[in-house]
Amino acid sequence: MKVEQTCIEARRASRVLAGLPRARKDDALGAVADALRRRSAEILAENEEDVRLARENRLADALVDRLLLDEDRLADIETAVRDVAALPDPVGEVVEGWRLDNGVQVRRVRVPLGVIAVIYEARPNVTVDAAALCLKSGNAVVLRGGTAAVHTNRILAEVVQGAVIETGLPREAVSYLGPDRRELAELLKQRDHVDLIVPRGGEELKEHLLEHSKVPVIYAAGGNCHVYVDAAADLDKALAIVVNAKCQRPGVCNAAETLLVHRQAASAFLPRVAEELGRRGVELIVDKPAGDILGDPSLKRANRTHYATEFLALTLAVRVVGSLDEALEHIATCGTRHSEAIVTEDLAAARRFSAEVDAACVYVNASTRFTDGAEFGLGAELGISTQKLHVRGPIALRELTCVKYELWGDGQVRG
Amino acid sequence: MKVEQTCIEARRASRVLAGLPRARKDDALGAVADALRRRSAEILAENEEDVRLARENRLADALVDRLLLDEDRLADIETAVRDVAALPDPVGEVVEGWRLDNGVQVRRVRVPLGVIAVIYEARPNVTVDAAALCLKSGNAVVLRGGTAAVHTNRILAEVVQGAVIETGLPREAVSYLGPDRRELAELLKQRDHVDLIVPRGGEELKEHLLEHSKVPVIYAAGGNCHVYVDAAADLDKALAIVVNAKCQRPGVCNAAETLLVHRQAASAFLPRVAEELGRRGVELIVDKPAGDILGDPSLKRANRTHYATEFLALTLAVRVVGSLDEALEHIATCGTRHSEAIVTEDLAAARRFSAEVDAACVYVNASTRFTDGAEFGLGAELGISTQKLHVRGPIALRELTCVKYELWGDGQVRG
Repeated sequence: MKVEQTCIEARRASRVLAGLPRARKDDALGAVADALRRRSAEILAENEEDVRLARENRLADALVDRLLLDEDRLADIETAVRDVAALPDPVGEVVEGWRLDNGVQVRRVRVPLGVIAVIYEARPNVTVDAAALCLKSGNAVVLRGGTAAVHTNRILAEVVQGAVIETGLPREAVSYLGPDRRELAELLKQRDHVDLIVPRGGEELKEHLLEHSKVPVIYAAGGNCHVYVDAAADLDKALAIVVNAKCQRPGVCNAAETLLVHRQAASAFLPRVAEELGRRGVELIVDKPAGDILGDPSLKRANRTHYATEFLALTLAVRVVGSLDEALEHIATCGTRHSEAIVTEDLAAARRFSAEVDAACVYVNASTRFTDGAEFGLGAELGISTQKLHVRGPIALRELTCVKYELWGDGQVRG
Repeated sequence: MKVEQTCIEARRASRVLAGLPRARKDDALGAVADALRRRSAEILAENEEDVRLARENRLADALVDRLLLDEDRLADIETAVRDVAALPDPVGEVVEGWRLDNGVQVRRVRVPLGVIAVIYEARPNVTVDAAALCLKSGNAVVLRGGTAAVHTNRILAEVVQGAVIETGLPREAVSYLGPDRRELAELLKQRDHVDLIVPRGGEELKEHLLEHSKVPVIYAAGGNCHVYVDAAADLDKALAIVVNAKCQRPGVCNAAETLLVHRQAASAFLPRVAEELGRRGVELIVDKPAGDILGDPSLKRANRTHYATEFLALTLAVRVVGSLDEALEHIATCGTRHSEAIVTEDLAAARRFSAEVDAACVYVNASTRFTDGAEFGLGAELGISTQKLHVRGPIALRELTCVKYELWGDGQVRG
């Protein structure tokens, strides 16, 4: 009942938010940023408590690090809110318009979705990022954070709500639910009051939503991304792209996990790339032809499981392919439709790869690491969607809206 | 297993379809239309068998009529296929594009969704319409028809497949599943091989999919549509619009079900509209103020259930409201977010109604009956979506596609 009531009140608030001009929303975001700075001592104290408990519960160091806030990280969160305020307002955009033969004027106008629930785990910055993106796009947001960051999330939500109220927006524009399992189950049933759920978490959370959510979900799935070095590749470009796609930030979804090399390029390219990657501590897992070329018996041999794995680490699977077709087939079978790259100087190969690879983002001669709302010039995002409906690629402000048809006439009826 | 195999083969065919130029798809659609004409005797014979069984099973006359094909109806289906061929190809459209600061060229390109399953009940024209729309938009289609039209659906699917093969498209571009319950259950699990399900049927089918489908669904929900006659309405326009929205085709989702009249317009408008509607056999179900104005004690009194009912018949609920706010509140509570109309000469009222009503289509001074792909100039459609994600309003060709990002560089890496 509590959750349903929260969602009903969020719906009511969303009607007010939908009509707000940009300035009112940006004022509220400015107040959020100011409040984060003003109340930083309180926030860091609550965060210390989460970190203390996490250590007491022997959470892995990497997880504790995800949880941890300090002055610098809090300042980054504040900056991110100001950056969202600086982005254009997606609401009110006339996407297209025309006049019917009978004179009725048709406009497709961008409007907020209404109420968005964001379900996340241990990163406390999501509390603020998600609230800022939803407010800017005119949506009410229901935040549901995980257990590990409960003290931090609660104070951050309170700070955001305080700023929202202070600038005259409805209190229920931002709601916060704690990490209660029964409340999550209730939330997943609120199809009448919640328009969209965006999960930010691992595969387990996604599977849970897929099984139980009655509310539409946009899944930001993992990325098993490939770089394919074609027979006609410029090997200098290929080297730079493979190293960047694997090493620049290995723990994220747009990092490369498998290198495919055309047979004709393999003997020239593999030793070079192996040396460069080796210097950076990358472990290679190779098929037999690659192993033969590299002549290093200590290299692990790749199997199907390796090719299906998102390592999120300094590990790269390698396979030699006989043709572009074989590369396309490998990507169709093992890829997760996130980001895929070809390195080639052959226009026909570039065109085929671009057209035939079924993924959110397809690259010709550029690193997969560019798949990111900010890199694309779209600003902050809630993740990268690998689904096809509604949004593919960065879930930025525009993707948190929908369109409606407005039709103005002067008495027209259908004949 | 059989259903999964069908979907896997549809996926394979979809890769071929995605790359076809418009001319190849239009040729196939032309061959479908020709084959429908050439094989009309066979089709009508199979349809006779369905109609005979339907009568034997004492199906309601209206249902038997939905099932029935004759030369004229078959010619309409053929024409509809040729009309789809004449529509522009949505695939390949560059939706937008720009250049990143580092020189990478970004394009968002429209591509087919992949594999679409259409689940429908007794209207045999859906077999052909759905196949034509999916083919034109470069998608493979898996058709799953209902029991009543099984003979007709089977022969129509066979005719379409024959034409598809004859023009060199992959056989599995169009697949047909019979009305087996277990096969339906299998189909709803094919998340890996089917990108979208579009149901064409009643609320029961929708509830079933909502409960069981693991594949994303676009729901074409019913329409509980309103016409609100404002205090500042031109009553001649109001009369024409109410009569048209209610009577022009009462059995469809964009017909009006409730008339809301502002108190100040009620005594002048209600007697006029009641007379006009009465002449056309419309039954009015009224609230007390409307009953008092009409002074007809035989009129049925409206309750909450009436206001929530999609009559799909010559029945109209009527309510007198004290303000625009009250009308907006009524629509927010009882509407199904399909099509809503205001009749007014007051610009402020028109603007508020247009902005604040949360529906796929909002009309100012025009009939709700225009909500239709062909009327909008979008061509044939698979229904009207009242959901917010991916598509709102007519599900036409463009809505059966998605976009992907294509990024072309010359060696760029992320710094």
